[in-house]
Amino acid sequence: MIKRVLIGLLCGAAVLTAGILIGHYGIEKSSGSAPAWAKDVSQDVDERLLEEILSEVDNVHIQENLRELTKVPHMATTAGDEETVQLMLERWQDPESGLDQAWREEHMVYLSFPDPDRPNKVTVVNSSNTVLHMVREKEKAYTPDQMDPAVVQPYAAYSPAGKVQGKLVYANYGTVGDYLLLSQTVALKGTIAITRYGGAGRADKAINAAPHGILGVLVYTDPLDINDSFMSDTNETYPHSWYMPPSGVERGSFTSTYGDLLTPYLAAKEETYRIPVKDITGVPPIPIQPIGFEDAYVLICELGGKQSLQEWQGGFNCTYNFGGPGFRPSSAFHSSDVKLDIFNYGKVKNSSNVMGVIRGGVEPDRYVIYGNHRDSWVHGAIDPSSGTSVMLELTRVLGMMVKQGKWRPRRSIIFGSWGAEEFGLIGSTEYTEQYFTKLSERTVAYINVDIAVQGNVSLQASGMPSLQNVIFKAAKQVKAPGVDSMSVYDKWLQYSNRTSPVYGPIPRMGYLTGAGSDYAPFVHYLGITSLDISYTFDRSKTKARIYPAYHTAYDTFDYSSKFIDPGFYTHQAITKTAGSVLVRLADSLVLPINCSDYAESLEDYLRWAMMLYENNLLAMNISMEPIKRAVSSFRSAATRLEQVIRSSDLANETPLKVRKINDQLMLLDRAFLNPPAFPSQYRHVIWAPIETSMQTFPGLSDTYLRAMSSGKATAWAKVHQLVSVMSQAIEGAANMLFDVI
Amino acid sequence: MIKRVLIGLLCGAAVLTAGILIGHYGIEKSSGSAPAWAKDVSQDVDERLLEEILSEVDNVHIQENLRELTKVPHMATTAGDEETVQLMLERWQDPESGLDQAWREEHMVYLSFPDPDRPNKVTVVNSSNTVLHMVREKEKAYTPDQMDPAVVQPYAAYSPAGKVQGKLVYANYGTVGDYLLLSQTVALKGTIAITRYGGAGRADKAINAAPHGILGVLVYTDPLDINDSFMSDTNETYPHSWYMPPSGVERGSFTSTYGDLLTPYLAAKEETYRIPVKDITGVPPIPIQPIGFEDAYVLICELGGKQSLQEWQGGFNCTYNFGGPGFRPSSAFHSSDVKLDIFNYGKVKNSSNVMGVIRGGVEPDRYVIYGNHRDSWVHGAIDPSSGTSVMLELTRVLGMMVKQGKWRPRRSIIFGSWGAEEFGLIGSTEYTEQYFTKLSERTVAYINVDIAVQGNVSLQASGMPSLQNVIFKAAKQVKAPGVDSMSVYDKWLQYSNRTSPVYGPIPRMGYLTGAGSDYAPFVHYLGITSLDISYTFDRSKTKARIYPAYHTAYDTFDYSSKFIDPGFYTHQAITKTAGSVLVRLADSLVLPINCSDYAESLEDYLRWAMMLYENNLLAMNISMEPIKRAVSSFRSAATRLEQVIRSSDLANETPLKVRKINDQLMLLDRAFLNPPAFPSQYRHVIWAPIETSMQTFPGLSDTYLRAMSSGKATAWAKVHQLVSVMSQAIEGAANMLFDVI
Repeated sequence: MIKRVLIGLLCGAAVLTAGILIGHYGIEKSSGSAPAWAKDVSQDVDERLLEEILSEVDNVHIQENLRELTKVPHMATTAGDEETVQLMLERWQDPESGLDQAWREEHMVYLSFPDPDRPNKVTVVNSSNTVLHMVREKEKAYTPDQMDPAVVQPYAAYSPAGKVQGKLVYANYGTVGDYLLLSQTVALKGTIAITRYGGAGRADKAINAAPHGILGVLVYTDPLDINDSFMSDTNETYPHSWYMPPSGVERGSFTSTYGDLLTPYLAAKEETYRIPVKDITGVPPIPIQPIGFEDAYVLICELGGKQSLQEWQGGFNCTYNFGGPGFRPSSAFHSSDVKLDIFNYGKVKNSSNVMGVIRGGVEPDRYVIYGNHRDSWVHGAIDPSSGTSVMLELTRVLGMMVKQGKWRPRRSIIFGSWGAEEFGLIGSTEYTEQYFTKLSERTVAYINVDIAVQGNVSLQASGMPSLQNVIFKAAKQVKAPGVDSMSVYDKWLQYSNRTSPVYGPIPRMGYLTGAGSDYAPFVHYLGITSLDISYTFDRSKTKARIYPAYHTAYDTFDYSSKFIDPGFYTHQAITKTAGSVLVRLADSLVLPINCSDYAESLEDYLRWAMMLYENNLLAMNISMEPIKRAVSSFRSAATRLEQVIRSSDLANETPLKVRKINDQLMLLDRAFLNPPAFPSQYRHVIWAPIETSMQTFPGLSDTYLRAMSSGKATAWAKVHQLVSVMSQAIEGAANMLFDVI
Repeated sequence: MIKRVLIGLLCGAAVLTAGILIGHYGIEKSSGSAPAWAKDVSQDVDERLLEEILSEVDNVHIQENLRELTKVPHMATTAGDEETVQLMLERWQDPESGLDQAWREEHMVYLSFPDPDRPNKVTVVNSSNTVLHMVREKEKAYTPDQMDPAVVQPYAAYSPAGKVQGKLVYANYGTVGDYLLLSQTVALKGTIAITRYGGAGRADKAINAAPHGILGVLVYTDPLDINDSFMSDTNETYPHSWYMPPSGVERGSFTSTYGDLLTPYLAAKEETYRIPVKDITGVPPIPIQPIGFEDAYVLICELGGKQSLQEWQGGFNCTYNFGGPGFRPSSAFHSSDVKLDIFNYGKVKNSSNVMGVIRGGVEPDRYVIYGNHRDSWVHGAIDPSSGTSVMLELTRVLGMMVKQGKWRPRRSIIFGSWGAEEFGLIGSTEYTEQYFTKLSERTVAYINVDIAVQGNVSLQASGMPSLQNVIFKAAKQVKAPGVDSMSVYDKWLQYSNRTSPVYGPIPRMGYLTGAGSDYAPFVHYLGITSLDISYTFDRSKTKARIYPAYHTAYDTFDYSSKFIDPGFYTHQAITKTAGSVLVRLADSLVLPINCSDYAESLEDYLRWAMMLYENNLLAMNISMEPIKRAVSSFRSAATRLEQVIRSSDLANETPLKVRKINDQLMLLDRAFLNPPAFPSQYRHVIWAPIETSMQTFPGLSDTYLRAMSSGKATAWAKVHQLVSVMSQAIEGAANMLFDVI
């Protein structure tokens, strides 16, 4: 019996098994079997894998990247620049830790250089043409770095060549107001003005001077604005501290626009139409030359004339006079001129972007772009090579994961190593001009990490408010360098914060209203949601507007590794933070773009605008109601979309539903562009640069202040027009967020 | 034994069944079960259902729609217009055959009207101010339609008011060249010019006249250009035939731009900023008034001066002289003036678009837009009500299918019944301005059916070449009206054809290079792939540039039902053709947008450009290589994308793959916009209107001819710039088609 029962059971089991097998494999379910791609399309960020990725980020690798990148000066289009191109290509094409693809893209762009055979000269000459003082032509050498023959003489890129001389005057920061005030005391025609960095754009110091008949301009960094006081190089400044040595000179591009100056709105290819050089706008109309504060001291402290204003006084231990014009009678320079011999020349040169991609596995036609420029003024250990060394470490880790088959992002990631940023964001701008529609239509976000580390105290981030949430999430995930118990987020909150009506105290994220780095063409030209991040110093302890070696020959590996980030732990932390943001943007099922946070910023701007302008606008019959209605539409639309997201089971619905929502989020910023009604390089109605310092809609603020000062009906018409442009752009953005039909 | 075996078998069967059931329902397949939405997302056009839809289209319904729409004149913003708004809303909100949603959208737009209390007057007056001839103020009544008090007096919208008088001259079509030639024979200062319709834009006839000191302009339709010869109203013209009666006057908008004139690039909402009326550009600077040929005959045949050119002679049985200036000595009018008393006034009025939607079931965030204007000059039975009656029948049939649950399109369909088109495409333009980003980002195609039927002989279609294939497919599916054995396609091929290098003989589709109807803002402002279709008369049998009742008080139900489409079978055929195109665009899995056909047009344009311009461009050091390379890139990209489509099993791959391809196709035309480099209302680099009649890139052609005639270096620089803009736009379009990463 037992045997029979056993056989029966075995047979029954076999039959049952056969049945199960037939049922499982032999019969199609009524709805068919789930396709192989179903799991991929519903996959969200894999937090465990992300932790693994971040754990691979290594400080020593970053340090060695930086050492390699800063061996020699690598100004745009020089031999040193080409070495970095080769380095990027080699790393990104590495079979074990490279990207899917990497290549070089070239543009023929208009650059400006000093003539190595005829260095620019600034001298004090008396009436018999005897040179009484000659401004130092090169920065003083403290390490072999400064002795490299490839160190470019300090100069103002795009300053015209020319020989000019005249009596010296002091013009503070060289703003429109500064020259106006100065002109009320001193006859400016035929003079040379000395100005300090800050307060106005570089080119503006010369552009604002020219209408007064000023012939040439000097610019220097006042110790008060960078070193907190007047310092000597014996033991107070670099190489003894991070402070700027007296001979240090900030180089820079003296332009008011961005991108190649000869090919506006077009990619600068070989055969592209170029405007005549004489038609370039936004560059200095008169010669301008930057000098060190050691020489500025000699000049300013000898000036005659009345004592200038209290706010015009800088860090020197002397009184800053306006200038007689010229030097005071008791000076050895009395009745002498200051003379500028400038030999800069312009040249169209071949500049390279290096591009690399990791193809998206699910949505290859959605791009997250991560970029930084590659060119520096001299060795550029901080600007930009801190960012480049971070980018190389990030691509090494991500590339390795891809090559090992452990990870492939949902969306495509594009890395850009931009050329010729220092001359005016040229490489990134030409890129956006060349791929205009493709990038507009497919880019989810742009992340810029240029000066990645200029201090080791706190994260600093600026971007569209919709990215606040993802940078917070990333910052919470990463330990602060040197403080085991705190996250990057905690330290940030400690050093820079605000109280949000929704979240309470949170770190303060800035806005990308300027054109300080390569995010500008993405924000202002393409309207792409962007983020710029870096680690910075304690701003409560110094008035330095930036790290003191900025754009000097002292921005070296030695400087960075001794005074900015010994051990490279801060570089490591920023790599992890940026990496987490990048992976979240690339892998999230629903894009981490929070439209309610955008609404909060718009409401804040609106509150300020109402407080500052509404009464006077009403008096001119300009109603702010359209803006109020638009901001309120935007808030409702944001709330509604988030409610849709929360109430949907997106992982189990058609992938076209989450794609639809993601497109709404991705294209949100695009709606703020109004190219025909708000034409210029700055087409983003909300973030266009503000001329004044109001925390509100820039266009409104600027047109309002112009109307108030001129009082003209046409100026008020411009304000009214701006109100219409802005409110319709905000309504347009709300329309992108509302239900699609 | 048998029993036992049976029991054993039964048990075994039961166990097997249990197993099968467990296997089928109890165990998740490794990949999970197919989700419910899988079938919907892979569904292509259901041809059987489409046939069913088309079979519902009914000629009598269309006829009754037209009767209803043309009961009274419905000029924009009049009571008659409001009646049609109500009719559209009622139909589109019908519970049994309406759309998902329908609503009204209003804009406050600047219109121009004659003053009913002071009708415009045109008279011949002698030196003692005696009126020798008075031009008819109203068209002659043949049916009660013309007696309706709401028939607007013939006038030139946007002509300034004013009283002017002077000696008459004849200026042919009033082109720049016509006035120039005339000025070489006659002293034009202080004269009044009479011109005929055609050859130049309406406003241009006055704009071109003003610089010569001409004070006012008359315009009439020459019998040669509309009736093939001079005809009387006894039995030759309407109501005896389709020809224009002698008193018929073409009304029209005399503007060179489109959209509301006071709110360029902004939606004309109540509080929108409006430019001052004096700043309006592109409108007549001097009074202009249209008149009938009956009066033109009296004026022209009395003119003195030399005999004008052979090409200037029209259909009258007299010689067309230039004018002395003024009338010939033997005329009763000798030494008399022609006097215009124009009382037109401008007014901001509330104009409505009526909008309706059918929500897409799978991709609601993709729109196919189908539109036509609603307003007419008088009764507008053909322009635009033939299109509106067709649209109403199409929405009835589609609405019914939706309400009965038989059909829901994959993508959303938006119907637009535009207001104030006759005044300058105002309703559609304001719509595109208001929803700028949303429409740019989501619209697959725009279909315009305005004058749906102006003849019963052949289909006529213009559009982006990428839509050629879908209109061909639709046209093959529909029987030609009145010819059982032929399709709409066959008749089209017979009446208008060309030989394609790829397909051989095919019907000739035109391009949308102008701004003749509401497609203009979609094509030129938004860069949306568009199609304009109608049924027309046999152009080999008449020189009429359009049906003779165009914009007159004779464009009535009576006219259409007697002379254009008795039985309304042509209306039915065009409804089916347009419906098929619409459903295919809305339902196809892969969008029926063929990029290779676009390549063919670009290659054709390039061939012409090379033939016409290359030698002279080379002589000016302007290379056409960038355009050649761009067109070749475009061809390769198109070939490659089509190869991807053909080689993919899109119905069984992730829906994100077909979405990616469809986005490439949808956005193709967007890449041809270059707003900053090619700024104006006409931003589509390929289809911007051409000033000359060359079959090639319009911008190139226009800038080239200007450079050739002026010979200036700056003019040649413009050509070079245009070559760059165009080649980069074409490269940009190719970039959209190439593999996305």
